[in-house]
Amino acid sequence: MRAETIVNVNQARLWRRHMELAEIGATPAGGVDRQAMTEGDREAHALIARWGAEIGLSAAVDPIGNLFLRREGSLTDSVPILTGSHLDTQPTGGKFDGAFGVLAALEALTALHEARATTVAPIDLVIWNNEEGCRFEPTTMGSGVFTGALDLNTVLATTDASGISVSQALDNLLDLGPAVGRRPLGFPVAGYLEAHIEQGPVLEQAGCPVGVVGGIQGLRWFNVEVRGQASHAGTTPHTKRRDALVATVAILHALQAHFHDPDDVVRFTVGRMHVSPNAPNTIPERVSFTIDFRHPDTAVLTRLGDKVADVCRKAAGACEVTVAESPASPPIRFDPAVTATLREVAESLHLPYRSLSSGATHDAKWLSRVAPSGMIFVPCEDGISHNEREASAPEALAAGTTVLANALMRMANSSQFVHAYEC
Amino acid sequence: MRAETIVNVNQARLWRRHMELAEIGATPAGGVDRQAMTEGDREAHALIARWGAEIGLSAAVDPIGNLFLRREGSLTDSVPILTGSHLDTQPTGGKFDGAFGVLAALEALTALHEARATTVAPIDLVIWNNEEGCRFEPTTMGSGVFTGALDLNTVLATTDASGISVSQALDNLLDLGPAVGRRPLGFPVAGYLEAHIEQGPVLEQAGCPVGVVGGIQGLRWFNVEVRGQASHAGTTPHTKRRDALVATVAILHALQAHFHDPDDVVRFTVGRMHVSPNAPNTIPERVSFTIDFRHPDTAVLTRLGDKVADVCRKAAGACEVTVAESPASPPIRFDPAVTATLREVAESLHLPYRSLSSGATHDAKWLSRVAPSGMIFVPCEDGISHNEREASAPEALAAGTTVLANALMRMANSSQFVHAYEC
Repeated sequence: MRAETIVNVNQARLWRRHMELAEIGATPAGGVDRQAMTEGDREAHALIARWGAEIGLSAAVDPIGNLFLRREGSLTDSVPILTGSHLDTQPTGGKFDGAFGVLAALEALTALHEARATTVAPIDLVIWNNEEGCRFEPTTMGSGVFTGALDLNTVLATTDASGISVSQALDNLLDLGPAVGRRPLGFPVAGYLEAHIEQGPVLEQAGCPVGVVGGIQGLRWFNVEVRGQASHAGTTPHTKRRDALVATVAILHALQAHFHDPDDVVRFTVGRMHVSPNAPNTIPERVSFTIDFRHPDTAVLTRLGDKVADVCRKAAGACEVTVAESPASPPIRFDPAVTATLREVAESLHLPYRSLSSGATHDAKWLSRVAPSGMIFVPCEDGISHNEREASAPEALAAGTTVLANALMRMANSSQFVHAYEC
Repeated sequence: MRAETIVNVNQARLWRRHMELAEIGATPAGGVDRQAMTEGDREAHALIARWGAEIGLSAAVDPIGNLFLRREGSLTDSVPILTGSHLDTQPTGGKFDGAFGVLAALEALTALHEARATTVAPIDLVIWNNEEGCRFEPTTMGSGVFTGALDLNTVLATTDASGISVSQALDNLLDLGPAVGRRPLGFPVAGYLEAHIEQGPVLEQAGCPVGVVGGIQGLRWFNVEVRGQASHAGTTPHTKRRDALVATVAILHALQAHFHDPDDVVRFTVGRMHVSPNAPNTIPERVSFTIDFRHPDTAVLTRLGDKVADVCRKAAGACEVTVAESPASPPIRFDPAVTATLREVAESLHLPYRSLSSGATHDAKWLSRVAPSGMIFVPCEDGISHNEREASAPEALAAGTTVLANALMRMANSSQFVHAYEC
């Protein structure tokens, strides 16, 4: 079978499986609550393993709970191509975030199976453990440990809000029955593809079924604390006040102007704010808030981010301001050979596509450190995600999955990616 | 003894008693934590009763725990003049809020005693129970029940955060030993005077030792809720956002302009704010905040307050806004005969005074409904109150107490105020 052959996916099956999977952890509002390493997460992993077994995929789980389902290649000892995403959700998550990447991978391998297509390199479907990081921090835990970016023992000792450790909760994912073997942590990867809903409105607005993701934008996180003077709201004249919330309003105004971008590429969000003492009749003494600033371009991240403290201080009036920065995530640029492959495949399928940057982080961030990696986006309704209302159309999911299936076949047959284990 | 005779108070004793009283519930930071109806509150009441007994004051407590120490007058069956304040504090309160009004009353009666001054009407020192309202709501509980503004049985059933009712906690104040009798709830009052620290910076800035309080400004309270759309901070373009916090910043800007007053009489405070879901990487879906708006003039309260909802809605952009108002407190104007007496007394003592309005509420609010009432303010450092740093100078306390003592003597000897119980 030549690389030019087009693999067709089954849109109805793909959709049906999304709906069936979403029953595990279903919420009354139509969303999914299936947090990492819960009984529901275990059930979801087991379901994918069963569906994989139906087309001959062999399952194995690694020490951090990542589940791999292998479709063998024709070349013995070839390093595998990986594809997948995650099955854990936010507490009020939707049916598609993560689930689509796993089911698209399963559908791609099922389509290859039905087309009796062979590939030189094996293809591993992977379900990364704990991408969301909402029960156990940090996010992208499974892929981080797999690629060596996070330390396994540190991660195993992490506890959730009720004091349960990853080490304890992990039992749910490590023992998935006799059909699922074990494999050691980490192995060479010839290439990585991840399909995902966009979680933003760009594709929907452009009326475009497929997004070829050039990279993941960089992120800088700041914690700002504004300190004034608590005093009685009824008795203190305004000229005598050092109101930390009044200063914060001025600071936020200044930051909005600072981060304003006519091209609407800059992402500037103040999502968390605490006011103290937070009493209706006391002038706020202290306000703390976060800044989430993202951009695909390192130069812009540096130029705008380095001035945050200055902008805050200049707008603070009589209040004092402290700005602390958390470790930054530099922008990720996906391998040009992978994005070129995705564009070529979309063109050969006559699917309009758009190149865009990912606003959210994904497991592909870590994989891009160890292998040529790329992502395929599909539109989602109103760009809404991390929300029970998250929605995507069957046609959109199928289009993205078709690109995935054909790109996997190309990569797993291409000397550009395929290589043998080094001795 | 004629009304023109000047009564002198003992500044050293007044100060010493403040320091001794502040040891009950003293905090490491130099403040006082002596919340209503606690063991400390009971100890403080008992101490004042003991000091009162030394100059022959007879003590009695009413069913809501208000403690009265009577200095008899010469006219049998004359309705008494009342003077006092409260001994309970905020959890991180200071040494002077409330305490000064009680100790000033005690010092005034001690000075009258030492001067062998007689008055026609009796003078009752009163310690109102639970003025602060921080353990049991509402504020000014004792004076509210005394004047019939609050219902005794409703108040008795109120519980604190740990489930203890006023009825249970009240035992601490009702049984102060054999020297303290009981008296029924409520009785006619010929006049009421309350001394208090200003809790604002007006007198200190004016370099003025005494404030004659014309009234208590009115208060309107609003709860504003701004609703937008939660979404991913990394993926959602600004043009697609309905960020409830961005809308709130615009609303607060508009409200600041709306309430701006070049004369600095308007008090506009946003003291409490909650952001939801309050996650650094999620665009705020909902922000709620309070507005505390005060002014001495009903017309201004109406004009500016009635436009709050309109100002909020106009600034909200794509977000929705709901504005709900809590029951308002209309401005209180103290009896002109009382304020005239206070001014005349200050002039006769050659003490510079300033007429001002009270920004905070006081027990005098309720008393003004049933008797000619007034208040005397003294400066406090930086206008700071409800704070462990609360401070006032011995000279300032003595000056206010001198005005109180002489005004009490005038009122208790004046046919303008003194009258007999009606049959």
